[in-house]
Amino acid sequence: MLSKQPKLTLVGAGPGDPELITLKAIRAIESADVILYDALVNKVLLEYSAEKALKIFVGKRAGLHSLIQTEINELIVEYALKNNHVVRLKGGDPMIFGRGQEEIEHAQSYGIETAIVPGISSAIAVPTLQHIPLTARGVSESFWVITATKANHEISKDIEIASQSSATVVILMGTQKIKEIVKIYQQQGKGNIGVAIIQNGTSENEKYVLGTIDTITEKAEDAQIGSPAVIVVGEVVKLHPKMLHASNLYQTQWV
Amino acid sequence: MLSKQPKLTLVGAGPGDPELITLKAIRAIESADVILYDALVNKVLLEYSAEKALKIFVGKRAGLHSLIQTEINELIVEYALKNNHVVRLKGGDPMIFGRGQEEIEHAQSYGIETAIVPGISSAIAVPTLQHIPLTARGVSESFWVITATKANHEISKDIEIASQSSATVVILMGTQKIKEIVKIYQQQGKGNIGVAIIQNGTSENEKYVLGTIDTITEKAEDAQIGSPAVIVVGEVVKLHPKMLHASNLYQTQWV
Repeated sequence: MLSKQPKLTLVGAGPGDPELITLKAIRAIESADVILYDALVNKVLLEYSAEKALKIFVGKRAGLHSLIQTEINELIVEYALKNNHVVRLKGGDPMIFGRGQEEIEHAQSYGIETAIVPGISSAIAVPTLQHIPLTARGVSESFWVITATKANHEISKDIEIASQSSATVVILMGTQKIKEIVKIYQQQGKGNIGVAIIQNGTSENEKYVLGTIDTITEKAEDAQIGSPAVIVVGEVVKLHPKMLHASNLYQTQWV
Repeated sequence: MLSKQPKLTLVGAGPGDPELITLKAIRAIESADVILYDALVNKVLLEYSAEKALKIFVGKRAGLHSLIQTEINELIVEYALKNNHVVRLKGGDPMIFGRGQEEIEHAQSYGIETAIVPGISSAIAVPTLQHIPLTARGVSESFWVITATKANHEISKDIEIASQSSATVVILMGTQKIKEIVKIYQQQGKGNIGVAIIQNGTSENEKYVLGTIDTITEKAEDAQIGSPAVIVVGEVVKLHPKMLHASNLYQTQWV
């Protein structure tokens, strides 16, 4: 039997629904000696792992980001160097909004072999499952994915530039910033653009509201939408079956 | 035994690697009576289907887009109304750059039940597998996905706006337009920004080049990069292990 080598595999767990994980991700979990997993990972997925595999929760605590990230980097190296296959299981895709690149780079600096398994990002899957196409002929030919909250807790300046473009804008981590987002679009005179907020997308307790920039704040409050949520801003939101049928109804009544 | 109802499921086949398909997608293929599949779908995935299932290639021919799309919409309805479960298997995610929404809307107008299974988009998976993070702390906090070629064959105006932003820009269908893309960035004085072009991403014959706006055209020509390819423009490209090691070496020599 060959002796095992230190290895790190960064694995995307997908957007929440445990069936939206890939075959390649399952095979990585099956072969793991140690699994370090995040808060957004569906714990059902850990059942694919060997019984003797060590499963460690490394979910981040608010306000302690950089410290904890250093600790995670060190844990990966510590376990891998004992000739283990370490799987770092992250929500969505492991290389976007997840500091996966830092983990890979740190491990490689110790000569540890690394691999990556892409995952389905909630930025795409959550609108897709809600029948909202991020692109559509004649409506939008691009989409821009932005995290609302930067490391310093300020709102991202990219949202201001995005509000001037014709791209569909997908905002993550934005529920607490919805009033600021609305204000940015209103300053562009875009109060009538479609907005969807989808909480717990792809999971059993998914909840959503549809509206426009001018109406979404009140609707989100009425529906008590919380985190984690995906916000979609753009005319494509009006292709959602409920808005489409509403507008057909409107035409029937008035034309 | 219950009689079957007409049903359409739009299924994302992922970016090419047949292991980058989800469990949910496999289950949909297994239960299909009819599968309509595109050119970018890996044909190995058809082996999950029942032996008696009808598999129909509906890849689009250049220049005949709208006609063929109408025919696809009609085929879906025709087969579904014979009480079949029709699976529409599309490369990547079925609701972005794929006219999936039009297919769903058409089927729903005939009262056909519809469902969607998200897939991994090559826009994210191809850079991720190349160790290029689309977002990274201190480098980029957003990414913008654009198709270079619009329905009228002109280059998308969104690329011009994107070149003025700090977003990582992911361009699909852009290999033939690389000189125009380079010119747009050079006009912004951004000749030194990193660029990667990855052809046949996630497949066995994957091929890529790394450079900057100023150097990429020549490098792509030397490497004979063709289609289909994903282009990434942004400073995050310099986090690719090859560029990172080159820049560390540079520092070692000169600092």
